[in-house]
Amino acid sequence: MSKVLAKAREAREASLKLANVPEKTRNSALAQVAISIVKNKGKILEANAKDVQAAELLHKQKKISWSFLQRLKLNEDKVGNISRMVGSVAKMEDSIGKTVYALQMNDGLELYKVTCPIGVIGSVFEARPDVLPQVSSLCLKSANAIILKGGSEAKNTNRAFYGLIRRETENAGIPNGWIQMIEGREEVKELLKLSDKIDLLLPRGSKEFITYIQENTRIPVLGHAEGICHVYVDAHADLKQAIDVSYDAKVQYPAVCNAAETLLVHSNIAAEFLPKIAEMYRKAGVEMRGDEKTMKILPWIKRATEADWKTEYLDLIISIKIVGSVDEAVDHVNKYGSKHTDSIITNDRKTAMRFLTGVDSSSVMLNASTRFSDGYRYGLGAEVGISTGKIHARGPVGLEGLTTTKYYVIGKGHKVADYIGPKAKMFTHKPLHKKWSEK
Amino acid sequence: MSKVLAKAREAREASLKLANVPEKTRNSALAQVAISIVKNKGKILEANAKDVQAAELLHKQKKISWSFLQRLKLNEDKVGNISRMVGSVAKMEDSIGKTVYALQMNDGLELYKVTCPIGVIGSVFEARPDVLPQVSSLCLKSANAIILKGGSEAKNTNRAFYGLIRRETENAGIPNGWIQMIEGREEVKELLKLSDKIDLLLPRGSKEFITYIQENTRIPVLGHAEGICHVYVDAHADLKQAIDVSYDAKVQYPAVCNAAETLLVHSNIAAEFLPKIAEMYRKAGVEMRGDEKTMKILPWIKRATEADWKTEYLDLIISIKIVGSVDEAVDHVNKYGSKHTDSIITNDRKTAMRFLTGVDSSSVMLNASTRFSDGYRYGLGAEVGISTGKIHARGPVGLEGLTTTKYYVIGKGHKVADYIGPKAKMFTHKPLHKKWSEK
Repeated sequence: MSKVLAKAREAREASLKLANVPEKTRNSALAQVAISIVKNKGKILEANAKDVQAAELLHKQKKISWSFLQRLKLNEDKVGNISRMVGSVAKMEDSIGKTVYALQMNDGLELYKVTCPIGVIGSVFEARPDVLPQVSSLCLKSANAIILKGGSEAKNTNRAFYGLIRRETENAGIPNGWIQMIEGREEVKELLKLSDKIDLLLPRGSKEFITYIQENTRIPVLGHAEGICHVYVDAHADLKQAIDVSYDAKVQYPAVCNAAETLLVHSNIAAEFLPKIAEMYRKAGVEMRGDEKTMKILPWIKRATEADWKTEYLDLIISIKIVGSVDEAVDHVNKYGSKHTDSIITNDRKTAMRFLTGVDSSSVMLNASTRFSDGYRYGLGAEVGISTGKIHARGPVGLEGLTTTKYYVIGKGHKVADYIGPKAKMFTHKPLHKKWSEK
Repeated sequence: MSKVLAKAREAREASLKLANVPEKTRNSALAQVAISIVKNKGKILEANAKDVQAAELLHKQKKISWSFLQRLKLNEDKVGNISRMVGSVAKMEDSIGKTVYALQMNDGLELYKVTCPIGVIGSVFEARPDVLPQVSSLCLKSANAIILKGGSEAKNTNRAFYGLIRRETENAGIPNGWIQMIEGREEVKELLKLSDKIDLLLPRGSKEFITYIQENTRIPVLGHAEGICHVYVDAHADLKQAIDVSYDAKVQYPAVCNAAETLLVHSNIAAEFLPKIAEMYRKAGVEMRGDEKTMKILPWIKRATEADWKTEYLDLIISIKIVGSVDEAVDHVNKYGSKHTDSIITNDRKTAMRFLTGVDSSSVMLNASTRFSDGYRYGLGAEVGISTGKIHARGPVGLEGLTTTKYYVIGKGHKVADYIGPKAKMFTHKPLHKKWSEK
């Protein structure tokens, strides 16, 4: 048996036990991890220093960027934050064991639909040292087993966190083997084949990486490959709001999935609005690429090509297009967007509703920056990911994305034969005002 | 462009419009279909007669079974039932436009999570003439576009229903092209590749067919490949309940996915229970296949092999195994079952809970027949399918399986920059007691 298969089997077996570990045990294990992270910060920083040293060499060779290096680097403060994050997951409301539907099917025959963990989660992520403790905590909180694969540049840091979390949680009564780690591309390839052992994949990384995973596995994948987000400035926009949102959505943090990549502007407001936002973009170092009509107003910018409408720049670049109506804007978003987050700026209610209901994206906004699309800002506590798919979960996903349901039927020897034929008993189908946990 | 791609594009375009068709229009279109089915019953029966004629020939050549032929055959009564079924879908509660979460993020910044259709559903199903009107009605009710592919033996019946439904709904104001039909295996192959046009597949059919689909598409698949359901008779079982449920689960309708295939019996009750149920099974013509221990009690039955524990008979055959504990029963179910439906018969509360929480199946039952696992019996109104997967929907799935959610964010020019840095505004994250539909 391969190492990966052995680990997946161990995780699968642990997951069946973990599903029945009480909330109290899961929470105290998380609290123990939080304490232990602070206690062992010396060892964690030591491991991280090795990763940083190797990464600095790669940076000198121009193989990784400065910001990549900064994200990799831990310090005492960051370790403290990670410990607090784990502690806060322990305090979140339990997402499992909730009765979502209870029905009296007939006298003495009761139905309960109850939330429960999914089973085994596969998490493949980039080289950021905070991801492993975060996703492990969320999985333990929701009683799921997890198989981790982190970016190789954070190898030593990941090993330190993994070792600590596994030791502390297993000592605290969490089933042995609930958390597993694999390394290397070959092991990921193997993992993708284990559709009978792994229930859900949560990949993070580049568009190419997510697409590779989606195309090479039968395991359901939750997440997004890219965020091509739009801001549409309507003819009836408040000019100040239009400028505030268009600027924020592009400039505030351009390297993230919910930053805007394309600005759509109604022709009636373009001559007034575009020179103002262009001046602000210019000062912020934003490169603008416009369609033919835009270039009549801003003749000094670059010409946008068809490829621009389909590109997630993740950088200080924006494409600009003038449209004749909200319908043209909606069509453009549905054709070129990535179903992530799009915003309209308007004071006209009817136009707003056309855009909000017409755009087929996970988040659609009115007079607000696309940058608000985020699990923490949406009040979900912690974010498992942002889904641009429509199955299971859509948009920013909290703990409920790690949760499924199970039906319990409680009878007294009930048989279906009694509900068939000329003397058939009738189902009562009355709502039951009882919780499964009260049984 | 291929015909299938053209149809999928048309469906995708229609789905964007259909998402905003009011409930009233969708319901009156469904009511119109129900009326028209009765009006056109002559034409429908004529088309069906052609299918039946061809099928009778196949039956004589022993290529299809008698029960297959019976299921294919329509009559006036059955057409009336189909019409009533469509009418009842019109009267179901709307599953879309519901506010599931509303939050004040900050002054003037509001978040709504609202249920909405998934988009385009692909439905591939066996030769039963009632499936096409049923699945089309459920899709229209939930504002989804649909691409249909039915069993070729019902070709003429399917064409008659498809033509009628398309004509009546488009006349009633449903967007042109919302319903599409394809025929032939080559077209299915093409359909499976259109992961950017189709959001969800609902396949029905044999285990081989479902597995083929799961292995050959990136589109999410909802359903089940097989139902290997267990009844476990515990040492503390009520003998009458054990007999009633074991008999019902196997005999009442053996050809369906929620019928039992394996009987697990605790060793303490086996000598008393097995001869009684065996006598009843014998009279009903059930072939029994036992493990070594079972054959000591029932020496006249067949010996079960390893393959029996993994087999969905869909017939009057049952495998029987004696176990030493509830834990052994749970392990057997989790190892050999198909995560569909399993039942324990016991009066011991602690043992019951071990089984209910330990078995990793979509429905787990206490003292009730596995045959109850069904959307109608669970009070879901209509059933889209039964899912043995854990993602999106699990167990019998009603209209909510055709529904996803969308986030709406309503601001007044809010920008994220105000919530960052030393002077950051704080999110209020107060529950909003408002519905999206009241906006």
